[in-house]
Amino acid sequence: MTETRQRIVLAARPQGEPKPTDFRLEETEIPAAGPGEVLVRVIWQSLDPYMRGRMDGGKSYANPVEIGETMEAGCVGEVLESNDPSIAKGDFVVGRLGWQTHAVVPAQELQKIDPAIAPISTAVGVLGMPGLTAYVGLLDHGRPKEGETLVVSAATGAVGSVVGQLGKIYGLRVVGVAGGAEKCAYAIDELGFDACIDHRSAENAKDLRTKLSEACPDGVDIYFENVGGKTLQAVLPMMNVHGRIPICGMISWYSGGSAGDAPEPDLFAKAWRTILVNRLSLRGFIIFDHYDRYPAFAKEVSGYIRDGKISYRESISEGLASAPEAFIGLLRGRNFGKQLVRVSDDPTRSG
Amino acid sequence: MTETRQRIVLAARPQGEPKPTDFRLEETEIPAAGPGEVLVRVIWQSLDPYMRGRMDGGKSYANPVEIGETMEAGCVGEVLESNDPSIAKGDFVVGRLGWQTHAVVPAQELQKIDPAIAPISTAVGVLGMPGLTAYVGLLDHGRPKEGETLVVSAATGAVGSVVGQLGKIYGLRVVGVAGGAEKCAYAIDELGFDACIDHRSAENAKDLRTKLSEACPDGVDIYFENVGGKTLQAVLPMMNVHGRIPICGMISWYSGGSAGDAPEPDLFAKAWRTILVNRLSLRGFIIFDHYDRYPAFAKEVSGYIRDGKISYRESISEGLASAPEAFIGLLRGRNFGKQLVRVSDDPTRSG
Repeated sequence: MTETRQRIVLAARPQGEPKPTDFRLEETEIPAAGPGEVLVRVIWQSLDPYMRGRMDGGKSYANPVEIGETMEAGCVGEVLESNDPSIAKGDFVVGRLGWQTHAVVPAQELQKIDPAIAPISTAVGVLGMPGLTAYVGLLDHGRPKEGETLVVSAATGAVGSVVGQLGKIYGLRVVGVAGGAEKCAYAIDELGFDACIDHRSAENAKDLRTKLSEACPDGVDIYFENVGGKTLQAVLPMMNVHGRIPICGMISWYSGGSAGDAPEPDLFAKAWRTILVNRLSLRGFIIFDHYDRYPAFAKEVSGYIRDGKISYRESISEGLASAPEAFIGLLRGRNFGKQLVRVSDDPTRSG
Repeated sequence: MTETRQRIVLAARPQGEPKPTDFRLEETEIPAAGPGEVLVRVIWQSLDPYMRGRMDGGKSYANPVEIGETMEAGCVGEVLESNDPSIAKGDFVVGRLGWQTHAVVPAQELQKIDPAIAPISTAVGVLGMPGLTAYVGLLDHGRPKEGETLVVSAATGAVGSVVGQLGKIYGLRVVGVAGGAEKCAYAIDELGFDACIDHRSAENAKDLRTKLSEACPDGVDIYFENVGGKTLQAVLPMMNVHGRIPICGMISWYSGGSAGDAPEPDLFAKAWRTILVNRLSLRGFIIFDHYDRYPAFAKEVSGYIRDGKISYRESISEGLASAPEAFIGLLRGRNFGKQLVRVSDDPTRSG
């Protein structure tokens, strides 16, 4: 363990895609925990697409990270010191600790984790915010009915992989969209999707639609949307009457590019027409609004993990200093499953 | 009364805006009513924007009108002959009778009207499909809460005028968008809107947004959407977190034009971002899916009309032959209130 605290701050607001020089590694003394506070050694740091939004100065659902501030992240760690009776030294906790090796936070902002239930890293993955996003989006906003067809973008990612597996549990036909043959094979063979289309093999949105249409002979009832761009363009006209589109992200547009086709000039009017004619329900949602659903989610999904009905995969980047490159890779789809940074040793894990 | 039946058929599928030659007036014998059927003399024919969609060959929520077929319309008429015990000669009825002077339809496709409750023309207006559209869209999809801000496009039209007046009854701040100073004055003075913006006075979507922002100091919670185009572009970025957009039409796009601004190339991505970041609910709806709400609507809204809390206005075009020009005018916003065609005399009306 380092004797100092390392942290990664936002050095500059990215123009389009972030680059390594938009981040800066700093070293400081390890801060002391004040009254009611806890000092945590960060073990697992989560990387999630929403972080790109925090790097921009504009209005979003949360305040931006200021230049020179530590980048935000959900993390799992071990308690080194506690000045609050609710948490003890040696406890494992999850909370918003940031891109850093050590964090001091109020005890009430942390949740304790029981390592006996599942590996502690899952508290920022399948049993954490991404899993809850999948659960709320599919159940509450997607309102699935047995026999319907679900299309999931970013199918092997932290959210998409849970959406698809929940879809199979609920009796849906599940068709994924993912980048590359290997991910598609994983979605079908390991996650149990009925089909998965490699968007990289499609020349444009129309070509992607042709491939998807073969996999969705009865159209699409639910499109779980977290990418935007070419995939959205492909799927929207395939929606069935009374279809639902939970929208929790648009990774292909986060850096401002029009990933996929050059947008048609009348794309917006066409989309609006589809929403009207097919009486679609679109619902943008941010998981921070839905933490009241956490207990139901945790109970149901931890059961599926225990019973082997939901599996998950992690992409692990080693060391805090690797976080910027790993994040840039995440935005480009280089991760395969939940993207984590191993900031320090996990004593509960052998490998 | 004519001794023959006149009807207007679709002569050609319009390219963009319909023109008079896309319609043809035909004369035939008055058809006879078969078993269970009723012969109706059409008095009031409704003109509604959705009819433009029926003229195109493409997929929509209903089958297109075929070339040479009578144009569809909801109408009010008087029964001349009935072969069904449920309806008697002399009854006033509402049903889908089409653009014609006489219609033969099965009795079960007609609803009887009581002229004592309200003028019979309201059965295709404030107490008919447009009123129900306003009611379902605002209540069920808009989910209004007292003190919120509602923006209504086509504010003085058959639907918008009811949406806005219901909004005031439910305690909302109501801001209309309409075409022309006269309509805006009517919305404020007669319908009780808090403000109304003349979209013709706005150079572009941005200018319209500036004017609307002054009238909506607390942002927009519900945007009742039935126009698309410039107004949609203006309002979308003004939506508050957890805002709702019931979508029942897009008249400015019905003829294929991009009424309003030349769309920005990234308009679609921007709209998607707004939906996500502000966690909006968008809901396309077609009133044919919601006839189960008719009894609640009729009871509530006929009460408001009786009590003078909801008023309405009619634009009357004289004679069946005038229907094509009146319809073309409707799509251009020339109507002022509910657009009707007086096909024959209304014996219940003096003026």
